[in-house]
Amino acid sequence: MKPQDIEDLSFKIIEEEAGDHGFSEKEWPIARRVIHTSADFEYVDNLRFHPEAIESGIAAIRAGKPIFTDTNMALSGIRKMEVKSFDGSVTCLVADPVVAATAKTQGITRSKAAVDAVADKLDGAIYAVGNAPTALLRLLELVREGRIKPALIVGFPVGFVNAAESKAELLETAGVPYITNVGRKGGSNVAAAAVNALLIMAAAR
Amino acid sequence: MKPQDIEDLSFKIIEEEAGDHGFSEKEWPIARRVIHTSADFEYVDNLRFHPEAIESGIAAIRAGKPIFTDTNMALSGIRKMEVKSFDGSVTCLVADPVVAATAKTQGITRSKAAVDAVADKLDGAIYAVGNAPTALLRLLELVREGRIKPALIVGFPVGFVNAAESKAELLETAGVPYITNVGRKGGSNVAAAAVNALLIMAAAR
Repeated sequence: MKPQDIEDLSFKIIEEEAGDHGFSEKEWPIARRVIHTSADFEYVDNLRFHPEAIESGIAAIRAGKPIFTDTNMALSGIRKMEVKSFDGSVTCLVADPVVAATAKTQGITRSKAAVDAVADKLDGAIYAVGNAPTALLRLLELVREGRIKPALIVGFPVGFVNAAESKAELLETAGVPYITNVGRKGGSNVAAAAVNALLIMAAAR
Repeated sequence: MKPQDIEDLSFKIIEEEAGDHGFSEKEWPIARRVIHTSADFEYVDNLRFHPEAIESGIAAIRAGKPIFTDTNMALSGIRKMEVKSFDGSVTCLVADPVVAATAKTQGITRSKAAVDAVADKLDGAIYAVGNAPTALLRLLELVREGRIKPALIVGFPVGFVNAAESKAELLETAGVPYITNVGRKGGSNVAAAAVNALLIMAAAR
């Protein structure tokens, strides 16, 4: 089987097993790709979409706005071909030496320092968080202070300390479109899958 | 909280919630890190360790034997500092132009062609599969034909077409130590987490 045939068959199996999932026509390609990358049907119940998230994300992609991520794993997983086709960019600064130095000086995580390092580029941009609650919490702080206005936050911190809490705060923060989930699960693979679904939708229409 | 404190607290929560998990003292750090990266306690039940897997993997790491992966996401997630400390290497050829050309010519997946491209380097090596059943199935074919003798296969293909089947075949293939799981779940993050746990164990003892 060719890769596209494998993906098509996988999506068919997911459709069958997900049953009457309740996602809208635009939400489903994103939910389906998240399930495809994780083989985890819990996402049928725990994914959450801001009503403007998909249109806002697609518009940002088509306008070539930058995409930022908190992990090099998510960066690796995001489809570069579609990003390039819109003259966009995808960047992760978590391993950047300047960011590392700032984090050390300020006593904060590199993930948080990486948000601050690009704060002046986040209006209209997409930030995909696959790991660090500190990155997501910093983004929300900047949103509440009116200092940034991202087109979309893809928020999938994973884990046992502040991951679920940071995503709950994303759900409650006014003024920023989001794609996220409830609970501890998530990860760089899930964040990349959600962004990739948007990239494919942006390229297709 | 500092990153190490967050990890320590996360591990404490995992220990408490996993309860009487039944893993050996050597298996638990690997299982715990897999749960840490996925926030998924299903791995308590579905992980499988070949009796020689951990010793064989640690010995390979300490001897600086090469580590190969099938995805750039797993490559990104594997801790380079520990790899370098043993003069080892970690490589993913799935996006290599020669591998891509071979895959096209032969009508096979790039993941399978990437295995063939390094077949002469796999004796004593570690191959971590985080995505492609075709990579794992090709590795098992070469093992059965007596053409390769890896120190360890870390087998975590994820998904709906042949992922579970390829891992079931890994469990039944004689002559190769494995760390894997039963079922559809897995992924590059899980494969990287298992390798990272081994790297940390190799560096600690």
